[in-house]
Amino acid sequence: MSLRSLGVELHCRCIMTESKPIGRHIEKVELIPANSHCEETEIIATLKKTGQEVCLDPEAPWVKKVIQKILSNKRR
Amino acid sequence: MSLRSLGVELHCRCIMTESKPIGRHIEKVELIPANSHCEETEIIATLKKTGQEVCLDPEAPWVKKVIQKILSNKRR
Repeated sequence: MSLRSLGVELHCRCIMTESKPIGRHIEKVELIPANSHCEETEIIATLKKTGQEVCLDPEAPWVKKVIQKILSNKRR
Repeated sequence: MSLRSLGVELHCRCIMTESKPIGRHIEKVELIPANSHCEETEIIATLKKTGQEVCLDPEAPWVKKVIQKILSNKRR
């Protein structure tokens, strides 16, 4: 079973990140730790209406706030 | 386009959560905020070797630690 078939990305998935705070449009967030294929932690949000995937900057304060709110189970 | 086809779950995806700290086996983590279909924030980890999906308890200290480590970009 190849890594690829396991859905493991063999490179970074994010080229650029969304700068505008889009917290209320986010349906879910995927956190991908740095690994042998990508030196950066990547955060990929799926948007509610379109299902579109958008990369977020792990260093951006608003991103950290969105993640904390999700974890603390507060409706945004 | 139905919600379902957008990949939007119409109910909670987690029935039980993994109690053992499995941080080093985690390939990526999905955070799903509470929504109209599921009152609970859900955290679903994908495991490295098998690609298996495992639900994690958002309240568990080890889970919070794993997420912080991912966000701070430290290799686990």
